[in-house]
Amino acid sequence: MIRAGIVGGTGYTGVELLRLLALHPEVEVKVITSRSEAGRPVAELFPNLRGRLDLAFSEPDIGVLSECDVVFFATPNGTAMRMVPELVAAGVKVIDLAADFRLRDAEEWAAWYGEPHACPDLLEEAVYGLPERSRAEIRAARVVANPGCYPTAVTLGLLPLVEQRVIALDGIVADCKSGVSGAGRGAKVGSLLAEVSESFKAYGVPGHRHLPEIRQTLSLTAGEPVGLTFVPHLTPMIRGIHATLYARLAADVDLQHLYEERYVDEPFVDVLPAGSHPETRTVRATNTCRIAVHRPQGGDTVVILSVIDNLVKGAAGQAVQNLNILFGFDETAGLDAIAPLP
Amino acid sequence: MIRAGIVGGTGYTGVELLRLLALHPEVEVKVITSRSEAGRPVAELFPNLRGRLDLAFSEPDIGVLSECDVVFFATPNGTAMRMVPELVAAGVKVIDLAADFRLRDAEEWAAWYGEPHACPDLLEEAVYGLPERSRAEIRAARVVANPGCYPTAVTLGLLPLVEQRVIALDGIVADCKSGVSGAGRGAKVGSLLAEVSESFKAYGVPGHRHLPEIRQTLSLTAGEPVGLTFVPHLTPMIRGIHATLYARLAADVDLQHLYEERYVDEPFVDVLPAGSHPETRTVRATNTCRIAVHRPQGGDTVVILSVIDNLVKGAAGQAVQNLNILFGFDETAGLDAIAPLP
Amino acid sequence: MIRAGIVGGTGYTGVELLRLLALHPEVEVKVITSRSEAGRPVAELFPNLRGRLDLAFSEPDIGVLSECDVVFFATPNGTAMRMVPELVAAGVKVIDLAADFRLRDAEEWAAWYGEPHACPDLLEEAVYGLPERSRAEIRAARVVANPGCYPTAVTLGLLPLVEQRVIALDGIVADCKSGVSGAGRGAKVGSLLAEVSESFKAYGVPGHRHLPEIRQTLSLTAGEPVGLTFVPHLTPMIRGIHATLYARLAADVDLQHLYEERYVDEPFVDVLPAGSHPETRTVRATNTCRIAVHRPQGGDTVVILSVIDNLVKGAAGQAVQNLNILFGFDETAGLDAIAPLP
Amino acid sequence: MIRAGIVGGTGYTGVELLRLLALHPEVEVKVITSRSEAGRPVAELFPNLRGRLDLAFSEPDIGVLSECDVVFFATPNGTAMRMVPELVAAGVKVIDLAADFRLRDAEEWAAWYGEPHACPDLLEEAVYGLPERSRAEIRAARVVANPGCYPTAVTLGLLPLVEQRVIALDGIVADCKSGVSGAGRGAKVGSLLAEVSESFKAYGVPGHRHLPEIRQTLSLTAGEPVGLTFVPHLTPMIRGIHATLYARLAADVDLQHLYEERYVDEPFVDVLPAGSHPETRTVRATNTCRIAVHRPQGGDTVVILSVIDNLVKGAAGQAVQNLNILFGFDETAGLDAIAPLP
Repeated sequence: MIRAGIVGGTGYTGVELLRLLALHPEVEVKVITSRSEAGRPVAELFPNLRGRLDLAFSEPDIGVLSECDVVFFATPNGTAMRMVPELVAAGVKVIDLAADFRLRDAEEWAAWYGEPHACPDLLEEAVYGLPERSRAEIRAARVVANPGCYPTAVTLGLLPLVEQRVIALDGIVADCKSGVSGAGRGAKVGSLLAEVSESFKAYGVPGHRHLPEIRQTLSLTAGEPVGLTFVPHLTPMIRGIHATLYARLAADVDLQHLYEERYVDEPFVDVLPAGSHPETRTVRATNTCRIAVHRPQGGDTVVILSVIDNLVKGAAGQAVQNLNILFGFDETAGLDAIAPLP
Repeated sequence: MIRAGIVGGTGYTGVELLRLLALHPEVEVKVITSRSEAGRPVAELFPNLRGRLDLAFSEPDIGVLSECDVVFFATPNGTAMRMVPELVAAGVKVIDLAADFRLRDAEEWAAWYGEPHACPDLLEEAVYGLPERSRAEIRAARVVANPGCYPTAVTLGLLPLVEQRVIALDGIVADCKSGVSGAGRGAKVGSLLAEVSESFKAYGVPGHRHLPEIRQTLSLTAGEPVGLTFVPHLTPMIRGIHATLYARLAADVDLQHLYEERYVDEPFVDVLPAGSHPETRTVRATNTCRIAVHRPQGGDTVVILSVIDNLVKGAAGQAVQNLNILFGFDETAGLDAIAPLP
Repeated sequence: MIRAGIVGGTGYTGVELLRLLALHPEVEVKVITSRSEAGRPVAELFPNLRGRLDLAFSEPDIGVLSECDVVFFATPNGTAMRMVPELVAAGVKVIDLAADFRLRDAEEWAAWYGEPHACPDLLEEAVYGLPERSRAEIRAARVVANPGCYPTAVTLGLLPLVEQRVIALDGIVADCKSGVSGAGRGAKVGSLLAEVSESFKAYGVPGHRHLPEIRQTLSLTAGEPVGLTFVPHLTPMIRGIHATLYARLAADVDLQHLYEERYVDEPFVDVLPAGSHPETRTVRATNTCRIAVHRPQGGDTVVILSVIDNLVKGAAGQAVQNLNILFGFDETAGLDAIAPLP
Repeated sequence: MIRAGIVGGTGYTGVELLRLLALHPEVEVKVITSRSEAGRPVAELFPNLRGRLDLAFSEPDIGVLSECDVVFFATPNGTAMRMVPELVAAGVKVIDLAADFRLRDAEEWAAWYGEPHACPDLLEEAVYGLPERSRAEIRAARVVANPGCYPTAVTLGLLPLVEQRVIALDGIVADCKSGVSGAGRGAKVGSLLAEVSESFKAYGVPGHRHLPEIRQTLSLTAGEPVGLTFVPHLTPMIRGIHATLYARLAADVDLQHLYEERYVDEPFVDVLPAGSHPETRTVRATNTCRIAVHRPQGGDTVVILSVIDNLVKGAAGQAVQNLNILFGFDETAGLDAIAPLP
C-alpha cells in the first residue's frame, strides 16, 4: 500500500478522487487538506463516503504531505506551483489535477493564467499525463500534469488523424459539450439548477484556457502548428463531455481501421463499430473514452465523436491511471467500474 | 376572425399550435382532427388547455376542413400531400408543419422520404415559409411549407453570410443541439427520460432529412451549391435548439454590423451585442431567434450562435407567423409572449 | 395605466413580476430598484426581456417610489417593513412578496424571523392576500401580504375541508415538493445543478417558516387551532409545487362536489375530475392552481393533490392578481397565459 | 464460482443485475434470455457492458436454465410463476425480481394482479427477501420473492416503529417519490423526457400494487392489521426513491437510539445523525438505505425519511444480497460500490 495525500479536497475532483482511492487496492489516503473545512470529517461533507473513509480534512502542512508517496493537487489554478517544488525535493511524486503544469511554455502559461509561473523549471520538466500518448514519460516523471477534461476528449479523438497526418492541420473544429460539474462546486449563480437546467449555451467562444492546451499536444504530435477552433458549451446534465470534431481529409484512408489499430491495446479507449453514436451515459463514473468515426456522405469531412466522464477520464480517474503507471500497478487498478445504466 | 382547422393535433406541434391559436385575437380553431383520439375533448389529453379550448378531436373530413380559411397540418410526413390538393382546390390556405412541401425537387424529396411525392405540381408551387427570407412570396402563397426546426435555426444564422458571400461556400459546419421534444410525442424507448436524461449524444451523422432542406435554402440564396456538414445532437432538455455554425471568412467585413443591419426590421430575430452567448431558455415558448456573432482570436473562422424554441419559431410559432402574413394580420399577432425565466 | 414600482428586482420573483407586468394592459413599470445592479439595464441581466422592457435598475429612493400608485417588494425578508410605513403614508398601495406582513402576531413573527418587527401596527392591519379567501379585504387594503408559495398550494388544497369542518383538525399532514427556483437566485452550493439534479431530499423538517403561516390561515378559518405537520422537499426541476395533503375525515360528505362548489367561481382554481392526478407542468408559468380530491379505497383518509407554479400563483402572479383586485381591474388581467406543454 | 441465469434481461432491473454480477467475485452469468432480442450481444443493447460481458441474449430454455445454480427473473409480472416450479424441481434456486411471489395469499395476489396464481404452493413457501427482516428464512429458501422498490424503502423506514409498537398502527402515511426508471424501459408516452421532466405528479392514489405488499409485511410484523395510506409520486430524475413516512407516537421513546440499535449490524442500512435529511444521490448505484428520524417540534408525529436506489436496494442489488445469503457468500460481495457524487 502506498500513502497518498490530497491537497484541496472539497471540490468535485476531490470527492471523485476520494471515491476512486477508497476502492483502490494499493493506495491508502493518509491526508486530505482544506483550509476552510479543516477538522470536519470528510463523510460529513460528502455523505456518499459514510462508512467508507474515516478521515477528516486538515490544514495543509508540507511536513505531513512529505510523508506521502504521492500527492494529488485538486486545488484552484495557481496553488500547486507554490507547493510542488518542496514536495518534489522531498521525493514525493506529484499529480496535479489543476492547470499549473499543463503548458510547457512559461510565457504562454502566464498569458492564459494571468500571473507569472512560480516554478518554470518544473513546468518544463513536468510530463503531460495523457497515458495514451506519453505512457513511458509518465512512468519516469516526478510531476505529472493531469490533462484538462476537454483536452482529454478532444486529443484522444484527434490523435490518430494527427499522428498519421491524414487531415489538413488548419481548420480543425472542436465543438464540445460539457455537463455542469465541469464548472466546479463553487457557489455561482451561473451554475444554479434554475439557471442552467432546461437551457443550452456556448461559453468562452472568444478564448478558453483549454485551447492552448489542446493546441500544444496536437502541434507537438504533428511537429508543426495546428489550427483549431474550440467552442465549449454547457449542457444541462451533471457529468459527461461530448466532443464533436471536424476536419478535412488530406488523404484517403480507412478511418475505422486507423482508430481501431491505434487504440487496440488501450484499456480505456473503446472505438465503437462504424456508424455508432456514443452516449456520455455509457462512460458515466468510469475511466473509459468511447469514440466513433464518421465520414458523412463519403465527403472529405471527417467527423469524430468522443465521449468521457469529465470527472473521471477527464480528471480524477486519469489521475489514478497516472498513479498506476507511476507506481507500476496494473493500469486499471481501482478503475474497473461499469457505468450504471440508466 | 378567421376559421382555422388542424389536421393531426395530438403531437407536440399540435398542442403548441393550439396554445398559440387559443390566444390569437384573429383566429378561431373550428376543427382539430385525430383518428386515434376522435371524440375525446382536447383538454383531456392536454390539461394545460382546460377552460381555454372547448373542442374535441374529430375524424378528418375534407368537407369540414374545406369550410376553414386555413388548415394546418401537424401530421407525420407523407400525410399532408394526400389531402392538400383537394383543400387548395376548395380555396383553403394550407400551412404544412411536416416536411411534405419543403424540398422543391420531387426526385430529391422521394430519395429522402422514401416514397414518390403525391402532388409534385403543388410541391413546386409551395413557398418555403421562412418569413425573414421570403415574406413577399408567403403573402401570395396557397401552400406554405413551414420550415423544419434545425433549418430555421441554421438558416437564420447563416443567411447574412451567404447573402453577402463573405464566407467560403464549402466546408460550412452546422453543429446543432436539440431538446428532446424535437423527437415528438411518440412512445419510443430512445426518448424516455431514463434513456436521454443525464446523457448527450449525436445522431443521424451519416445523413439527416434536414440536411437537404438547409442546403436547398442556402444554395438558392448563394446561387450555387453550398457544402455543409450537419450534425444534430440530443440534449437532455425539453425545448430549444442551439446551432453552432462555423465557416471560413472569404472577405473582411464588420460581422456584427452585417447581422444587425440584416435583421434590424425583423420582429423575431434579435442580434445580441458583440461577445454574447445566447441561451436557449431566453427564447423558450416564444417565436424569437437570438443570434450572436464571433470571430475567435480574430482568425478567419466565424462562429455564429443561433437559438430558437424548436416548437415555436421551429414549428408552431413560425406557422402562426406565416398565417399572420398570409392573412395580412400584424405579424406578431398572438406571438407576443415573453419567455418565462427561470 | 397605473404606475408601478418594484423594490428588489434581481431575484426570481422580481423577473417574473417584470414578465407579467410587461404584458399587463393597465400597468406601467416606472421604477425597479437594486442596490447591487443600479444603472444596469434590466434586459442585460434578464435577456428574456430584451426589446420588451426599456428600464434600468436604480438605487431605492422613497421619493421616486412615492410617485407610484403601487409598489411591490420582491426583497429578502426584513427589508419591506422598514420602507413600507413611509410609502403607506404617501398613499401608495403596497404588495409585499416577502414574509414581512404575513403573520398577524408580532411576537410570533419575531420568533420565526429572528428580529423584532419594525412596524407592528401595519403588520396587524395588513391583509393576507389569498384572494380565494379574502377578496373583499384585499380590495380595501393598504398593505397586502402576498402569501408564500407553499402556503398558497396547501391552503387552497385544505380550505374547503376546514371551512366545512369535515376533517379532524389535528393530525393533518402536508407533504410538499418544490422546484429549485423556490430557493431563489442566490449563489448557494446547495442549489447548484450538480448538487440537486438527479436527487431528491426533504429539508426543514424540524421547522420551516411557512408552517406558522399555513397554521395561521387554517386556524383562523376553523376558529380553533389546527394541528399540522409540514414537510417540504426539493425536487429536481425549476418551477412547480406539488402539495400532497392528508387528513382524517370526520364527516361523510361528497368531497368532489364540495370542492367543485367551493371553487366554481374562482378564475384561478381548477378542480379536476374525480380520479385525476394533476401535474405541475400544466400550471407552469400560469396563475392557476389545479386540485384533485381522493379517498383511497373509500377509507377515512382524504388525500388532496394541489399544484401551482411557485413563481406565479405562489408569488408574482398572485401579486398581480392582488393588484387587479386592489385597483378594480379584471382579476385575470395580465394573467391569461396558457402553460406551454411540453 | 456459481452459475447464474437471468430470464428477461432487457429491462432496467436486468441491465442493473448484469452490471452487478459482472463485478461479482463468486458468480458467472451463463445465460440471459430474451425472446425479442435473442441472438443479439448484450453489450450491443447496453453499451456500458462493452468489454465486460461477452454474452448474447438467447431464447428461454428450461433445460439450459436448469444447469444454473441460481436463476433470476427480471420479467414482467406473471411470467416467473409459470417457469419457477420446473426450475425448483430441478434444484435451482430462484430469485424473482417481479411480483409473482410477494403476496402470501393467493386470493389477494389474484385480486391485485388480475389473474389466478399459477403455483399457489410455491407462493406460500416463497420467502419475502428483505434480509433485514428475514435473513434466516432466506438462507434456507428455494424461492426468494425480491421485494418491490417502494416496499423496501417504506418497510425499512417503519420496521423499528412497528416491531417495538411505539406508534399507532392505523393512520400511517407513506408519501413516496420515485425516479422514472421505476416505470421501466417500456416505450410509454407517460415516461418520455418531454412528458415527465420539469414536472411532478402523484399517481395510483386510488390503489397501487405495492400497497398490499407493504401492508402484509407490516401486519405480519405487528401481529395485527396495519392501516396505511400509500401515495407514490413521479419525480423528474432517473434513479432514487425517497419515502417520507408519518405516524403518531403511542409511546415515549428515544427514536434515534431505537433506529441506531435496530440497524447497527446491518451492512446496508445507514441511520443518519439526528437532524439529517438524506439525499437520494448519496445512495445512487449502491445497495444502501439511508434513514433519518424526526419528531418535528417535539410533537406526537414521527417523520421518517428513507432513501434507496430503486434499481439497486429496490431491485437488482437486493437480489444480489439475497444471492449472497442463499449461497453463504459475504453479504456485501459485489455490492461495495460507493455512490458517485455529484
